[in-house]
Amino acid sequence: MLAPPLRQQSLGAGRVSQPPCGRLTPNPNPVYHNAAAQGCDPPSPTGLQATQESPHVYTREEVRSHSSPETRIWVTLGCEVFDVTEFVDLHPGGPSKLMLAAGGPLEPFWALYAVHNQPHVREMLAQYKIGELSPEDKVPSTLKTSDPYIDDPIRHPALKVNSQRPFNAEPPPELLTENYITPNPIFFTRNHLPVPNLDRETYRLHVVGPPGGQSLCLSLDDLYKFPRHEITVTLQCAGNRRSEMTQFKEVRGLEWNIGAISTARWAGARLCDVLAKAGHQLCETEAHVCFEGLDSDPTGTAYGASIPLARAMDPEAEVLLAYEMNGQPLPRDHGFPVRVVVPGVVGARHVKWLGKVSVEPEESYSHWQRRDYKGFSPSVDWDTVDFDSAPSIQELPVQSAITEPKDGETVQSGEVTIKGYAWSGGGRAVVRVDVSLDGGLTWHVAELDGEEQRPRKAWAWRLWQLQAPVPAGRKELNIVCKAVDDSYNVQPDTVAPIWNLRGVLSNAWHRVHVHVAP
Amino acid sequence: MLAPPLRQQSLGAGRVSQPPCGRLTPNPNPVYHNAAAQGCDPPSPTGLQATQESPHVYTREEVRSHSSPETRIWVTLGCEVFDVTEFVDLHPGGPSKLMLAAGGPLEPFWALYAVHNQPHVREMLAQYKIGELSPEDKVPSTLKTSDPYIDDPIRHPALKVNSQRPFNAEPPPELLTENYITPNPIFFTRNHLPVPNLDRETYRLHVVGPPGGQSLCLSLDDLYKFPRHEITVTLQCAGNRRSEMTQFKEVRGLEWNIGAISTARWAGARLCDVLAKAGHQLCETEAHVCFEGLDSDPTGTAYGASIPLARAMDPEAEVLLAYEMNGQPLPRDHGFPVRVVVPGVVGARHVKWLGKVSVEPEESYSHWQRRDYKGFSPSVDWDTVDFDSAPSIQELPVQSAITEPKDGETVQSGEVTIKGYAWSGGGRAVVRVDVSLDGGLTWHVAELDGEEQRPRKAWAWRLWQLQAPVPAGRKELNIVCKAVDDSYNVQPDTVAPIWNLRGVLSNAWHRVHVHVAP
Repeated sequence: MLAPPLRQQSLGAGRVSQPPCGRLTPNPNPVYHNAAAQGCDPPSPTGLQATQESPHVYTREEVRSHSSPETRIWVTLGCEVFDVTEFVDLHPGGPSKLMLAAGGPLEPFWALYAVHNQPHVREMLAQYKIGELSPEDKVPSTLKTSDPYIDDPIRHPALKVNSQRPFNAEPPPELLTENYITPNPIFFTRNHLPVPNLDRETYRLHVVGPPGGQSLCLSLDDLYKFPRHEITVTLQCAGNRRSEMTQFKEVRGLEWNIGAISTARWAGARLCDVLAKAGHQLCETEAHVCFEGLDSDPTGTAYGASIPLARAMDPEAEVLLAYEMNGQPLPRDHGFPVRVVVPGVVGARHVKWLGKVSVEPEESYSHWQRRDYKGFSPSVDWDTVDFDSAPSIQELPVQSAITEPKDGETVQSGEVTIKGYAWSGGGRAVVRVDVSLDGGLTWHVAELDGEEQRPRKAWAWRLWQLQAPVPAGRKELNIVCKAVDDSYNVQPDTVAPIWNLRGVLSNAWHRVHVHVAP
Repeated sequence: MLAPPLRQQSLGAGRVSQPPCGRLTPNPNPVYHNAAAQGCDPPSPTGLQATQESPHVYTREEVRSHSSPETRIWVTLGCEVFDVTEFVDLHPGGPSKLMLAAGGPLEPFWALYAVHNQPHVREMLAQYKIGELSPEDKVPSTLKTSDPYIDDPIRHPALKVNSQRPFNAEPPPELLTENYITPNPIFFTRNHLPVPNLDRETYRLHVVGPPGGQSLCLSLDDLYKFPRHEITVTLQCAGNRRSEMTQFKEVRGLEWNIGAISTARWAGARLCDVLAKAGHQLCETEAHVCFEGLDSDPTGTAYGASIPLARAMDPEAEVLLAYEMNGQPLPRDHGFPVRVVVPGVVGARHVKWLGKVSVEPEESYSHWQRRDYKGFSPSVDWDTVDFDSAPSIQELPVQSAITEPKDGETVQSGEVTIKGYAWSGGGRAVVRVDVSLDGGLTWHVAELDGEEQRPRKAWAWRLWQLQAPVPAGRKELNIVCKAVDDSYNVQPDTVAPIWNLRGVLSNAWHRVHVHVAP
């Protein structure tokens, strides 16, 4: 059904409950509620008084079917329905960002970007109102009670979901580098198991003491008593950019695009302080600190991983038992109430819903430490792989990707703006990003943004951008980026020679092919 | 003049002054004397008594002209001259190693490989004697007294010289990976200035104290009093493999092949202990430790470089003020009596002939710290370069190269043996070397040799080798190697995208093209 492009004119500004807000910076910690779950309580978020004429009423499903220029583009705010087809190209943040909300509620996106919390934005939107949501239209519950994932939290609709059970999702490229600090609701999520439902009051962290010593059983309040340490850290999944490996040859793993990476400000107790309190010391043996999550599979096997004791005990390595993410308690998807944050190290070691910490003579015996998250030669297949022959991934190699423009997009002639991120493992700073418009024949140096990086502790990414003239007469551009870190490690040119059967460590030059508007 | 292939038969074993020696391992610290400089004193090194018949007498220049199969291959030992043309293919160490001595003395090579110090080797050689050296034939002095390099030491003839003044030379590939520990005489040499002639008795190291503190003036004996620390460390010049960059596009710099890298066992005092003795502490400021050499140019400007204070003060970083190299006092070319050894860091910071150490708020102002040894984008040329825009090279990226077979060589069909080295900066261990026979389409995993690597302190290289079947019918092989370190950093595929105007950081896949014997 093609809905009429009806426009109901604004009847006046009415009561606007929000104070005028001049902040143009995004709020990294929005508290938003899913409009669908919220139901349709007055007052209407546009603050408009209802007209006498009774409005058109639409179901959520009808709204959902209007998500492209062909079907027209509808969105909702509270119980109101808007046809924003004509506005998409006028959206100050660009059409692609508004399209993320097409067919659904605006709230989750507005919650991310405080710039929308202004009267003139609401007035502008009011012009596109076409009707209201059916009041009894609630979010359909598709979760069955026998589903171990039934307690999983509700997620932000902007996330591109790679797997629902367990939940694995990434922010779309155009949102990924919109902010240096990734807002919590769109921080990429890599779960291996259902999200445990933990209570801040009854939560306890078990820290096993050294032989002959005493173990600790720490409540959240106990953890707060350790010196609070706060750092900005980028997390990346080993499988980030796996989809590019798949294009070369099939692998086993989730089809991550370039968004299995995000950055947050974490606060917590330093692991070295907690281990010291339990009586652990850095000895010369090659010991490991093993972590166990409170998430588990139906057999009761918990998620687990480990890091070398030397890293855990090094105050300069800043390994955290984090209880805050961007100034908020950890969201459930990110390990509430406590997770490990291991700066410069692959995401898989940042164990969420942390239940137990122990010091062992060997690495964790968990599947994810010993039979996964390892790199192999392209020559190794599932018949020949020997997982014991490769070290578990800890520090990650240098990485970068282009977030704008997108592959297949058409860019204007004249000048093109290219944006992206760059990061390296082990605290190595990104010192340069080279960008090519001709597939790697000639290069430009991009401008780096983001927080100043501390030597040997550059835990967070740099965002970058380049404005470059489009060579006259070019009908297409093969845009490529590659980063250099302060050990002068670089990304490999192509993906085939680093292909591996699990599709991890995909850090070849990132390539985007675009058309130039005539 | 083509010399007659005269063979004088051995007349008996005679007096052999050396005891029989069963050691087959090479001696890393040979004390050898250049035969040319030694003159021709009896007894003859073959231990043979002179025959009645007076021998043919040749000049050194005549011997030098016999250095290829076409002119025949002559060598000398003491005052005796041998035509070993017929023996070259029988040489147990391979023809190419014997050819390194062609036209010159055997002593420097025999000094490296103790296996030669056996009676049967000398008896075998005696069969090829064709005459003796003219007794008055001394080494021609080509150095003039006004030459600032006149005091430079005599070097091993196996070294491939890239520059005589200052002296810069590398071992040939086939010797480079013959030993895990590079013998001192063929350790690559990178001098920026003439070699200073220092005396162990009068040498003093000046360590500037902190503000208000006291400076130290340390003799060599004072340094010995600090705890002795011994580690195996690979040094690599930033310009190693520059010749491959030059093939793509001209750069400014010495034409290093793959041999500007070597490994030694170093002993000395830890820099952190010496700095602590002088009253220095690790403060939060971004300070640097500046080193000054006692080598200087005609204006008196000394060689200088610096490293971050954080690295210098970290006991785990194991930065040494080294006074021993492979169990011997440092050779003059390698910094006698004291040099800095900064494990995992570019050779340029391992300041030789160390005169002064100070802690400064900024990096060394030396040319070599600020206007050299930095990496740039391929787009930067000498008109646009801004040296302040790039960080000075400290840790080096992952590296590997093929030492056997050599480019252009012909290998046997059936099976080919490929050898090489692999190393990474910053203490990162090499975890894998992939080798391809088809230019990178398919890969084999090489076998790694060498010392066990400590986590985060893998300061030394791994040697590697692969025995692989030559695919039937192949007339040529495009052999490629690439290494992976424990941060899973890899080498880039090609050299053009990492080209830079100084030709540093050349770590693309190493490629060797060989023919297959029909």
